[in-house]
Amino acid sequence: MIIIIRADAQAEKRAELTDWVRGLGLDVHLSEGADTTVMGLVGDTSRVDIDILKALDIVKDVLRVSEPYKKANRKFHPADSVVGAGGCLAGGGKFALIAGPCSVESEAQIVSVAKKVKAAGAGLLRGGAYKPRSSPYAFQGLKEEGLRLLLLAKKETGLPVVSEITAVTQLPLFGGVDIIQVGARNMQNFELLKELGRTDKPILLKRGLSSTLEELLMSAEYIMAGGNERIILCERGIRTFEPATRNTLDISAVPWLKERTHLPVIVDPSHASGISRLVPPLSLAAAAAGADGLIIEVHEDPARALCDGPQCIKPDELLELVAKLDTVLTLTGKARA
Amino acid sequence: MIIIIRADAQAEKRAELTDWVRGLGLDVHLSEGADTTVMGLVGDTSRVDIDILKALDIVKDVLRVSEPYKKANRKFHPADSVVGAGGCLAGGGKFALIAGPCSVESEAQIVSVAKKVKAAGAGLLRGGAYKPRSSPYAFQGLKEEGLRLLLLAKKETGLPVVSEITAVTQLPLFGGVDIIQVGARNMQNFELLKELGRTDKPILLKRGLSSTLEELLMSAEYIMAGGNERIILCERGIRTFEPATRNTLDISAVPWLKERTHLPVIVDPSHASGISRLVPPLSLAAAAAGADGLIIEVHEDPARALCDGPQCIKPDELLELVAKLDTVLTLTGKARA
Amino acid sequence: MIIIIRADAQAEKRAELTDWVRGLGLDVHLSEGADTTVMGLVGDTSRVDIDILKALDIVKDVLRVSEPYKKANRKFHPADSVVGAGGCLAGGGKFALIAGPCSVESEAQIVSVAKKVKAAGAGLLRGGAYKPRSSPYAFQGLKEEGLRLLLLAKKETGLPVVSEITAVTQLPLFGGVDIIQVGARNMQNFELLKELGRTDKPILLKRGLSSTLEELLMSAEYIMAGGNERIILCERGIRTFEPATRNTLDISAVPWLKERTHLPVIVDPSHASGISRLVPPLSLAAAAAGADGLIIEVHEDPARALCDGPQCIKPDELLELVAKLDTVLTLTGKARA
Amino acid sequence: MIIIIRADAQAEKRAELTDWVRGLGLDVHLSEGADTTVMGLVGDTSRVDIDILKALDIVKDVLRVSEPYKKANRKFHPADSVVGAGGCLAGGGKFALIAGPCSVESEAQIVSVAKKVKAAGAGLLRGGAYKPRSSPYAFQGLKEEGLRLLLLAKKETGLPVVSEITAVTQLPLFGGVDIIQVGARNMQNFELLKELGRTDKPILLKRGLSSTLEELLMSAEYIMAGGNERIILCERGIRTFEPATRNTLDISAVPWLKERTHLPVIVDPSHASGISRLVPPLSLAAAAAGADGLIIEVHEDPARALCDGPQCIKPDELLELVAKLDTVLTLTGKARA
Repeated sequence: MIIIIRADAQAEKRAELTDWVRGLGLDVHLSEGADTTVMGLVGDTSRVDIDILKALDIVKDVLRVSEPYKKANRKFHPADSVVGAGGCLAGGGKFALIAGPCSVESEAQIVSVAKKVKAAGAGLLRGGAYKPRSSPYAFQGLKEEGLRLLLLAKKETGLPVVSEITAVTQLPLFGGVDIIQVGARNMQNFELLKELGRTDKPILLKRGLSSTLEELLMSAEYIMAGGNERIILCERGIRTFEPATRNTLDISAVPWLKERTHLPVIVDPSHASGISRLVPPLSLAAAAAGADGLIIEVHEDPARALCDGPQCIKPDELLELVAKLDTVLTLTGKARA
Repeated sequence: MIIIIRADAQAEKRAELTDWVRGLGLDVHLSEGADTTVMGLVGDTSRVDIDILKALDIVKDVLRVSEPYKKANRKFHPADSVVGAGGCLAGGGKFALIAGPCSVESEAQIVSVAKKVKAAGAGLLRGGAYKPRSSPYAFQGLKEEGLRLLLLAKKETGLPVVSEITAVTQLPLFGGVDIIQVGARNMQNFELLKELGRTDKPILLKRGLSSTLEELLMSAEYIMAGGNERIILCERGIRTFEPATRNTLDISAVPWLKERTHLPVIVDPSHASGISRLVPPLSLAAAAAGADGLIIEVHEDPARALCDGPQCIKPDELLELVAKLDTVLTLTGKARA
Repeated sequence: MIIIIRADAQAEKRAELTDWVRGLGLDVHLSEGADTTVMGLVGDTSRVDIDILKALDIVKDVLRVSEPYKKANRKFHPADSVVGAGGCLAGGGKFALIAGPCSVESEAQIVSVAKKVKAAGAGLLRGGAYKPRSSPYAFQGLKEEGLRLLLLAKKETGLPVVSEITAVTQLPLFGGVDIIQVGARNMQNFELLKELGRTDKPILLKRGLSSTLEELLMSAEYIMAGGNERIILCERGIRTFEPATRNTLDISAVPWLKERTHLPVIVDPSHASGISRLVPPLSLAAAAAGADGLIIEVHEDPARALCDGPQCIKPDELLELVAKLDTVLTLTGKARA
Repeated sequence: MIIIIRADAQAEKRAELTDWVRGLGLDVHLSEGADTTVMGLVGDTSRVDIDILKALDIVKDVLRVSEPYKKANRKFHPADSVVGAGGCLAGGGKFALIAGPCSVESEAQIVSVAKKVKAAGAGLLRGGAYKPRSSPYAFQGLKEEGLRLLLLAKKETGLPVVSEITAVTQLPLFGGVDIIQVGARNMQNFELLKELGRTDKPILLKRGLSSTLEELLMSAEYIMAGGNERIILCERGIRTFEPATRNTLDISAVPWLKERTHLPVIVDPSHASGISRLVPPLSLAAAAAGADGLIIEVHEDPARALCDGPQCIKPDELLELVAKLDTVLTLTGKARA
């Protein structure tokens, strides 16, 4: 960590700062310039609160030299982590294709679509039971009953399943769920992240609507700090000024994250765009950019889906997409798992 | 609600849609044009999922004519709601001045600063016990002990207190807290909102970093739908491309919200800017724009505050601000309460 | 165009509005509802100023039913336009690979890199002579001399060339330039667009940093309204809150634009990311999403490039990319031209 | 300027960099740490291209210690600049109230509204003759005739006038115009800025829709570098995700800019919000935040204004606002000039 000290800083205040930093167990290297003094902090600076330093009158700026995340950092864990459930894995050359409806609606619906997405090539079934909706008057999911139906579909098809959790208190109900999803709105629900850090389930962590990539990694770090290192990161679009699509898919997030972390990175083209016709091209783009998987909303009758209909594709569109996807994966050295 | 039907829609599909809408208990008015047919839905459309409609192939666009929030809507509740604790109120001509440190750090600190902010004119004491921090390695607040110390300061000074909750499970510890704060990161933690809707405490609801004003009102609606209508809305800056300030204070939010809702609207200039020198001018601006209150971070030694130091002002700066504030309030027909 | 009239509108004011609309040569269809009246305007509404309508006290909202762009609209011109120079074309199954340095620096530099990018598979040479820089103290390009050197490289290699114009007064100097580029900062320099509408050169129109896709199409419409319909649209990243990349590549822009316009759409992964290591994955992603071409910054010694070094790739990296690119293009039914 | 060198940088490459920097006439101070080496550059670094440095393999990061703007920098020019025309000044305790219609429409209209805004307290008349519109089919202003009518209104009322320029070629027509406005879309039209740097007219420079405050200062620097130092900066709202207002007024820009530059800073609440009812509260907020002036759209019949109607206020609303404004100005030590 580099601290730039103002030219007009009093010697006494500089000495106080130096003492304080040393009190944190860090070494200090000073470099005096004409206009500024540069103070380098050497040691484990991950506990240093950059804001405290910036608050000091004598400090002009502070620059982190090392990343604030450790367990998620590829620097300390060069090999790809491989995370998944059943035979469906992401990372280390494995590409996870996750598909299914936004919401579980009925036994007939979830079982039927599960069979269809399996036939199309999906390795994991998604299905929402607890739905975070911006309106209290909108359909909030079938809840416990939804989880029960999802597990029926798992039993029928053999597909492992992923479903979203929206409160710590629901955790006991997720016993049969293979991967627990943390949605965009809960990416910084730190109490939930801490609790998930104590479980032994893989976590699918979605990026918040306006979270930076570094914040996404720090949220992964929350879970990992608790002992659970099986995390799949998911880019699902960010909020920008552009109204053409529901969110803006930040495709650069894929290669940027892959450089910095060993955790697998997947993409959700359905929520990112909110438009079903854009899902196939964005899926291929994600794979071409190096993603380790996709999570795609599929519904047999998108026009009547209880939520998020406009972004669902049909099973036969998924099938058509998978063929092209496999061609792209040969270029990035990956294969569907 | 207005549905624009595509020119090339099949008659059969149009009939299906009409039936479906009528099945929801709504009346349908059709207006045929050359290029498009306009379908007007009459009745209570708050339960209609706009996304389902948009998903239909035959639908070009859907436009809400009435707002999706009801209990928060000024249309159905023209008079200002007045919300607060002790003698400190916001709304209906009352202006609530809330001040205090970001975090409770020690008994000496919180009691001392509480006396100072009271002397400067504040009517409510803020102090964080549970701190949502983006890094798991950063200081997370004194938690239960922090709440205990905050209540000591309340007892010493007579000031009512506000503190942030970060999980439903903490609720039993908030018995002595006068107003419960929901932070920006939890604005769409719907499970928390539902639970707070069942309490009888006033709620200070902060706008999410990238939440629209309509989403803020919908989150208030979540709490109100549960029965608790005592909510103070708080604009605290949004995330934009501009790096000069930590967030961008959306000052227009104040008059825009005041038009649409009867709930009081306050401003947090400290988090919005992240720069202490900007807090006084932004506070005056907020009051001039019609805010019903301010929540300001005050610390006796900002440079050593355990968190968020750069944005704290000192008690004597608060005192100086209050004198000017009262002049601005005469223009908006308000008075500190 | 649909106008929603407020429930409490006076009959007299409604009659005035109806007269005014008819005065514009449009037909009016009225549909009365319980809460609102819907007024449909039938005819050519492209000259109706939506803002005037919204300003009226009796108007609640206005909704466009048809797009405000005509000449760029695929609805009226279903077949792909094919635009390019020499044998290098974009659109209609042709994929244009444009490459070259950010700035022309010297004869040796531009001729050498031109040969290298040609050998790697590029069909068009890019090279900036007039550089829009945010600082008046930064290198502003070699200007007229830069254009002269670029044309030397064209002569040496046979590659057609594209270069950016920054003022109308430079137009006479662009005689030998095959495609004229309008940069992001000039996308809404309407006087420049009008002038380019009177030329017979293909125009490479880059999206503004914070321009919506509809605004991009309207800027194309400015040029087309003047008679020049040979336009290539270019997505080059938008400004968002995310600091990880210089801009955020809006990959969804590609399929969204391709649906709405017949104009070719290419992508600039170099400016979008500002990071050379991200250029290859983003290039493949753009092709997979359906782009009709790429414009890539290539420099033989990126670390010493006079501007924008961090985002340049080397000629051998381009060569390696092209092989993969061709595989992706087979999936989208395109081929390098 | 501080360069952070990677730990694994080869000695030879470091030596090359040091030589290169010294070749630019700068001194180099090296500070070796365990993980990183910090290189401090001493001297005039305004010509150093930060991007070239960042491009080097051995460089981890580069941090500017001094601001890239000089002539606009308050550090080198501590006293407020006072800029204006006639008796209407901004800066140094003077507050400029600029008002008038968006567009000049007719002699009767501009003369009448000029008299009204003068009576209400405005010191400068605004009126657009060249209108940058996103659609080529929308009204583009009366152009030369509009300027002529504006000068008639100046003659009738004695009010100095401001009008927007959209191309260098229009400059000869602006002889009688007192202040030339550069609109948001042209803030980075550097060729226009350079030309205006050679004139002797005050320039009202509006912030771009998605320009950072530093970029705004750099655009001012462009004009100042040419010799014209009479610039008024104008905050007019930025583009964000929030759809409630047309743009988001960045009120923090006012105190932030005032700290960093001696140039006067005014606010345009009309374009910022796009909603007339928000103009009075935002005007008061701007004054309370320390603005040196306001530019407000006023129209006698907003509902029939040819452009931007929804954001215009009426002359009597201006009059009412001015009374409150004067009270706020007493708090910031300013007076209308």
